[in-house]
Amino acid sequence: MNFKMVEAIEVLERTPQALEYFLSGLSEGWLQGNEGEGTWNVNEVIGHLIEGEKHDWIPRLEIILQDGERKTFAPFDRNAHLNEKPVRSIEEKLHEFKTLRALNINKLKALVDPEMDLELTGSHPALGTVKLRELLSTWVVHDLTHIVQIVRVMAERYRTDVGPWIQYLGILTKK
Amino acid sequence: MNFKMVEAIEVLERTPQALEYFLSGLSEGWLQGNEGEGTWNVNEVIGHLIEGEKHDWIPRLEIILQDGERKTFAPFDRNAHLNEKPVRSIEEKLHEFKTLRALNINKLKALVDPEMDLELTGSHPALGTVKLRELLSTWVVHDLTHIVQIVRVMAERYRTDVGPWIQYLGILTKK
Repeated sequence: MNFKMVEAIEVLERTPQALEYFLSGLSEGWLQGNEGEGTWNVNEVIGHLIEGEKHDWIPRLEIILQDGERKTFAPFDRNAHLNEKPVRSIEEKLHEFKTLRALNINKLKALVDPEMDLELTGSHPALGTVKLRELLSTWVVHDLTHIVQIVRVMAERYRTDVGPWIQYLGILTKK
Repeated sequence: MNFKMVEAIEVLERTPQALEYFLSGLSEGWLQGNEGEGTWNVNEVIGHLIEGEKHDWIPRLEIILQDGERKTFAPFDRNAHLNEKPVRSIEEKLHEFKTLRALNINKLKALVDPEMDLELTGSHPALGTVKLRELLSTWVVHDLTHIVQIVRVMAERYRTDVGPWIQYLGILTKK
């Protein structure tokens, strides 16, 4: 086990601003591409991260702390963000993500005593018993998963453009 | 073909600062892990990106512009950065990467006329004839490949910690 709350927070607090720096002001071509039918573009991935801040991580943390395994988590709708109308700019969405994340990190610090609470358990609707530290580890790796997705979707745009170099570019050849 | 020089530069100029924001100040545990024997940790990936700024992209661009296919590119040593002794801090290396990248983007803008030069060709030691626009597209996708690598290596650290959630986390299950 490598999880330490202070180190998990290091990543959680960096993700929104690193994404804001990387994505703000990019041409639409970088933001609108996806990996085929049913896959998300960069703007949609940020929408999904926002949904997680609202409905996934902290609500589940609060259930574990208040109810333990007596109250099963509400299922998280992975596609809720696709209903957004009208679609907002990436800058607006990154700003919302950053704001929500900062609030949630403050809540995390206020709610969880890392000396006492990490082994507390909750009930996941599909996975069964889960630990608080597993929820927090997953929050971090979920960030990392979606950073990878964003960057991979952007690379897809130059699949043909790289010519014969494609064979050296794992991002385009390993799926 | 999607390549436009102005859009390629958008990504090239964002990579160093986004990585600096994401990685500076992280605990050593995030920076020292790798994906097994013969794979690189985060610090080593930044070393490789620095080598590319020094010995790969601009030198090859200059060969294409000056000599075309008459002079084959020097092979690029993908492991040169592993000889660094002593290993410098991630913050020092990110600063060097950012500085070199800014200089190289200025050179790129000064050297290449995107209306005239993109179809010029050079000779790659393994791949044969390559176009200038393919070299520039590859520079962009090479950045993206190594951002993904950095983030994937970091996720690896919590492989066990995420518990049963691992099945939802493609970054840990698709290799």
